[in-house]
Amino acid sequence: MIGRLNHVAIAVKDLEASTALYRDTLGARVSQPQPEPEHGVTVVFVELPNTKIELLEPLGADSPIAKFLERNADGGIHHICYEVDDILAARDRLKAQGARVLGSGEPRIGAHGKPVLFLHPKDFLGTLVELEQA
Amino acid sequence: MIGRLNHVAIAVKDLEASTALYRDTLGARVSQPQPEPEHGVTVVFVELPNTKIELLEPLGADSPIAKFLERNADGGIHHICYEVDDILAARDRLKAQGARVLGSGEPRIGAHGKPVLFLHPKDFLGTLVELEQA
Repeated sequence: MIGRLNHVAIAVKDLEASTALYRDTLGARVSQPQPEPEHGVTVVFVELPNTKIELLEPLGADSPIAKFLERNADGGIHHICYEVDDILAARDRLKAQGARVLGSGEPRIGAHGKPVLFLHPKDFLGTLVELEQA
Repeated sequence: MIGRLNHVAIAVKDLEASTALYRDTLGARVSQPQPEPEHGVTVVFVELPNTKIELLEPLGADSPIAKFLERNADGGIHHICYEVDDILAARDRLKAQGARVLGSGEPRIGAHGKPVLFLHPKDFLGTLVELEQA
């Protein structure tokens, strides 16, 4: 069912310094910062040959990554995102097997303009998993 | 400098249940368990179209992931691995920029039979980074 690893998301406190780390120290290609007010983050994409790293900085008062950064002062991996062909079929298969979908259980439009869902970390090896319809 | 994302490593307490989760619930292709006594882990490879997820279970008394699992009872992402063309050149570039290399600073032969180094999470956004010579 799951396909490509779409991205690994790293929550960071200082997007400018984090971008410089990936660009200058690690020598990767990075995008311009992209504010996503609907998702409460500003994103920089690190473009690797086979996938992306997304650096996420909190944006606004209700950022979904603010609490994570309170607990992880240095930053850290926030979630990983797998692609699926059909997000409703994926959701129904997962729920039938007892996995918990976060929020309302209905897909939202994610930061790439595609339907996404998040799965409960306790059901997936302590890892917050995003599914994105490819 | 960094190239492909070689893998994301997830530390798990129960490799059999974790393998079933990725195979049966998430529908991915998974390998047979592979004991790596020199690295203190048993590994299952989850083969995605563009990269791998590695499920790591502690093996032996001195497993490097045992303490991580004491702190993270459900498991969790332990490290991410980027490929580099020349690991000694990569190390020297990173050290010149003030980044800390773990251990002796000399590459070891990793679980794929290639030279690897680990970088200090405090210097890389709270993320343990492995570099592997491609």
